[in-house]
Parts: sequence; C-alpha cells; structure tokens
Amino acid sequence: MRAATVRDGKVVVEEHPDPTPGAGECLVRVMAAGLNGADILQVAGRYPAPSGSPKLIPGMEIAGEVLSRGRGAKRFARGERVMAIVGGGGQAELAVVHERQLMPVPDNLGWAEAGGCPEVFATAYDALFTQGELTMGERLLVHGGAGGVGTAAIQLGRHAGAQVTATVRNPKLRDEVARFGATVIAPEDFVARGPYDVILELVGAENLKGNLESLATEGRIAVIGVGAGAKAPINLLVLMAKRGRIHGSMLRGRPLEEKAEVARLVERHVLPQLGAGTIQVPVAATFPLDRVADAYARFANGGKLGKIVVTMDEPGD
Amino acid sequence: MRAATVRDGKVVVEEHPDPTPGAGECLVRVMAAGLNGADILQVAGRYPAPSGSPKLIPGMEIAGEVLSRGRGAKRFARGERVMAIVGGGGQAELAVVHERQLMPVPDNLGWAEAGGCPEVFATAYDALFTQGELTMGERLLVHGGAGGVGTAAIQLGRHAGAQVTATVRNPKLRDEVARFGATVIAPEDFVARGPYDVILELVGAENLKGNLESLATEGRIAVIGVGAGAKAPINLLVLMAKRGRIHGSMLRGRPLEEKAEVARLVERHVLPQLGAGTIQVPVAATFPLDRVADAYARFANGGKLGKIVVTMDEPGD
Repeated sequence: MRAATVRDGKVVVEEHPDPTPGAGECLVRVMAAGLNGADILQVAGRYPAPSGSPKLIPGMEIAGEVLSRGRGAKRFARGERVMAIVGGGGQAELAVVHERQLMPVPDNLGWAEAGGCPEVFATAYDALFTQGELTMGERLLVHGGAGGVGTAAIQLGRHAGAQVTATVRNPKLRDEVARFGATVIAPEDFVARGPYDVILELVGAENLKGNLESLATEGRIAVIGVGAGAKAPINLLVLMAKRGRIHGSMLRGRPLEEKAEVARLVERHVLPQLGAGTIQVPVAATFPLDRVADAYARFANGGKLGKIVVTMDEPGD
Repeated sequence: MRAATVRDGKVVVEEHPDPTPGAGECLVRVMAAGLNGADILQVAGRYPAPSGSPKLIPGMEIAGEVLSRGRGAKRFARGERVMAIVGGGGQAELAVVHERQLMPVPDNLGWAEAGGCPEVFATAYDALFTQGELTMGERLLVHGGAGGVGTAAIQLGRHAGAQVTATVRNPKLRDEVARFGATVIAPEDFVARGPYDVILELVGAENLKGNLESLATEGRIAVIGVGAGAKAPINLLVLMAKRGRIHGSMLRGRPLEEKAEVARLVERHVLPQLGAGTIQVPVAATFPLDRVADAYARFANGGKLGKIVVTMDEPGD
C-alpha cells in the first residue's frame, strides 16, 4: 500500500507492506484521513507515535470501508462505512483498527467529512463533557474557535444548551464561526467577556492567567492543546478561591479500552446529531494522498475554517 | 461575651455583645475552638472574613452546647453537644450557627478534640473524596502529614483503603505520624517515592513541579493550602500527558447550602469512625481563651502534631 511517510522531518509518499488484521481487528480501505496538530508535531520529530502504532506513517483519524476482518471481529460487515481514531498510520491506503475503536459513518456524511470527524469530535466531547462536565445553561469559552476542534466544541456546547463564546484570531473567519452558534470575539477580549464555567484551552499556556482570572466559581479549564507554549506561571490561590480545576488530557496514548469508551460516547451522543445534519464537519480543504506535503503546508499556514483532509483514490481508479 | 479579637495585627480578648440566633440558627455556648492557618492569615490582615461573618473575631470551628434556638430550628435540642465549621467568630464564648451546619459530637470525644475536629476533617474529606475521588487501592500522598489536616487526611485515606504516604519535615514527629497509618518520608524524597494517584497539597506552590512529576496517569492534585507560596511555573504538557487534574478548593466562603452538604458528608462518612475511636483527633496543645495569643504563637511555631485548640471556661466557673 501507499502511505504518507515521515522522512527527515518531511512527509513523503512511500510504498509499505499491506497490514493484516489481528484478532478483533478490521482491515479498512481508507478513503479519507484528517490532519491534526499532533501529525505536524510527529513529522517535526516532537511527538513520537505511541507504542504499538506505526512509527513512520502519520494520521490519527480515518474513514473508509471494511475490507476484511480478523478472528472474532463481528461488529461491522465487509463493505460497511466506518470511521475511527487511530494511534497513527491513518494517512495510508489501508489501516488496521480494532473493531471497538470503529464507529459507523452516518449516511449523509461524505468521505472527507467522515475522515475529518473522529479526532475532533471525540476530543471536544471528552474535554467538554467527560472532563469539564459542561451542562445546560453554563457559559463555555472555546479558545481557537475556527479550527477543527474549535468548530466541533462550539457545536457540541450549543447543542448541550451552553452559552458559547469563542475566540477567533482571523477577522475574516469570525462570521462563519458565529454561524456554528457562538458569540465570536477577538482573543484579546476574552477576559473582559467572562466569567466562564468551562474553558476549552487548545492554544497554549499564555492564556492560563486570563483563564484563571475569567473563570467562574467552581469553573473548569480543560487543557487539550499547548501549541503556542506549554509553560506559564500559575497562582494556585486564585484556583483555590474559585474552587476551580484544571484538567489536562489527550486522546493519543490511551489504552484500547479507553479509546473504545470514547468511541461509544461519540456514537451515543454525537452521531445522532451528525446523522441529522444538525452538527456539521466543516472541511476547509482536501488534498489527494500524492499531495500530502501540500496538505501539511496548508495546515501549518493556519487561518482555516475546519479540517484539512487527505483523500485516497476510489477503489479501481 | 468575651472573644478573641483582631486588633492591629494582634489577637487580644475583648468584650462583645452576645449574639442572638435568627431563623434556623442555634446559639452555641462554645467549649472549644480549634486554630487553623486561615486564622493566622486573618490576624495578619491577609484573609478577610467572608461577608456575613464576624469581622473581628477569628475562629473557623467550634464545639459546644446548644443554649437556645431561633425560629424554626429543631435539629438539636437545648444542651446537646454540637460542633461545626463557621465562617468566623468561633473563638468566643458564644457563637450563632445555622443548624444545617451543626453536627452532633460523638460521646467519646472530649471538648478539645471536638473543637479541633470539624474544619480539618471536613477539609480533608472534601479534598480527598469530593474533589480528588480517592478510592480503595489508590496511592495517596499527603504533604505536611503532621498538621491537623494532614493527620485527618492520613486516617481518612487509610480507612478508605488507600496506600498513604505522608511527608513530615520534623524528624521527631515521623514515628507518631506513621502510627496514623502512613509511610512517612522526608519532604525532599516525595518525587522519588511516587507515583501517586491523589496528592493533597497544603504546603505551597513550591511542590507543584514535583507533584506533576510524581503524579500517576489520571492522577489528581487537590490544592487546599499555599502557606509557603501561591505562585509557581506549571508545564501544562505534563498535565496533558498524564491526563491529570488540579483542583483548588477552600471551605471558607462557600454558601450555607454547600457547607451544610459538607457537614452531612462528614456526619455520614467520618463521625462513625470518630465515634468508634478508629479515627482520632490529635490535639497538640490547648490554651484557655485568656491565653489565646499564646495559642497563636504556638501555632505559628509549627513542629506540632495535630491541633492547637482554645478552650473556654466551664459554665459556672
């Protein structure tokens, strides 16, 4: 099979042996695979793949068709449309995934949307609800509202009955992000527009002081990204006085049972909305596998609304 | 009534008008009132009493007898032995407390023990279980294991089936603290002796780096005291990689309904152990109200095992 491959800090396309499914696993013909910040870090050598995952092939989420099943695998039949978070190796023509990590793809989702869906919606769902315990009527702040996780979080927050505020740096994207259901503000205004019961932090530690300052009593800060910097000073007395809490989390590196649990939560709580079209997966651009390097360059440029997705040739092309 | 009173950064004894109980409140003849770190901060002018509490009279916990009841108060009869966390004003001959904040005093507890019990056990219970979700078999680290909250936390952790490690700075106290059920270590050894599922931080921010380093995957840090410093740098990527969380909390300043909820939890989960004598309230020293300044000096000196308690004259003395 052909696959995106990390070589000397760059991403190229190379031939690899076809993988074979083990017990409980499915071999998936990948049709689309979204890009995520972790892929960029992995290509730069700053974020090694978890043990047991392909080391050289990036890609943390896929959508495609079940080609064959390993011993005991029975949740999905051959030919069924599936999508999943994977530990790596997603940006390839074939991928092997445990059936407990797979989710069905709603009929109304195209391949690019499906390929850009699992990672961001699972990440946002886990951060907002499992970690942050966001509930109806609460005030949610989403930092970086225009990105894949940001647009997912805004929609999930709104559908759960929260009042959503989102920061968007690029003024050109603010109207579009507002359509997902958020009050959109410039990043420098977020403290003044608080307080917030839940803050989704996916930008960096530079926001920590402002996050604490604008946190409501018993508020929760869910940190799921620190691309702009991981280290900052913290005043624990402020956290005590607000009786607040700070969660850190990432999906990658979790054991199979926890990834499967997240997949079940997304199936139960998010897929119905995606299937009904009330929640969308915004795709900023798609690139065929041959142009995967361009996809990474586009991702790194930023200023996009939603996902960058790598698409594979249709079978028989 | 006579009461400890904050005057120019010192604590003296002065006459005050007797308080009268309002609806749902009891007037309590205080027999003993424990000292806590917050009292020291309040006397120093660094921790104002919450609104609605006596401004000049320190004291966050009391034990005594119900003298009279306001309209509608019926949980306790006149003469019953009660104890409670109060927002302030505890180190006085009389105190008015809402009956939902009061707890019964187990028969086997003396006045000094009862007066030194509510704040530390409620604080430790809330931090370990409500915030930290400590459960059987987990590894608990208690920073400052020789103090009032520390000895309470060690005993609660052990009775809940946790494996408890406690830091104690004073080598002379280590054997006594170990008897409460902890593996006692020097503060500088705590990182090497990890990992820990729950860390109770009541010393200061200086421990934050080591706490994160020695935190287990999905571990929780409960910050309930920062006497040795509130500010420190934090690396949020470490918190993400461990999928950890940091809670800040304090009991003071919570509304009545939340304080009452904590009192119900202590009644249900801690009083049976105190009543059976399987959990103790270690009292390091008692001082009569006239010598309250000495009590504060003794508290500030540190190096004590358990509580410093101010005792009032027996009625009729």
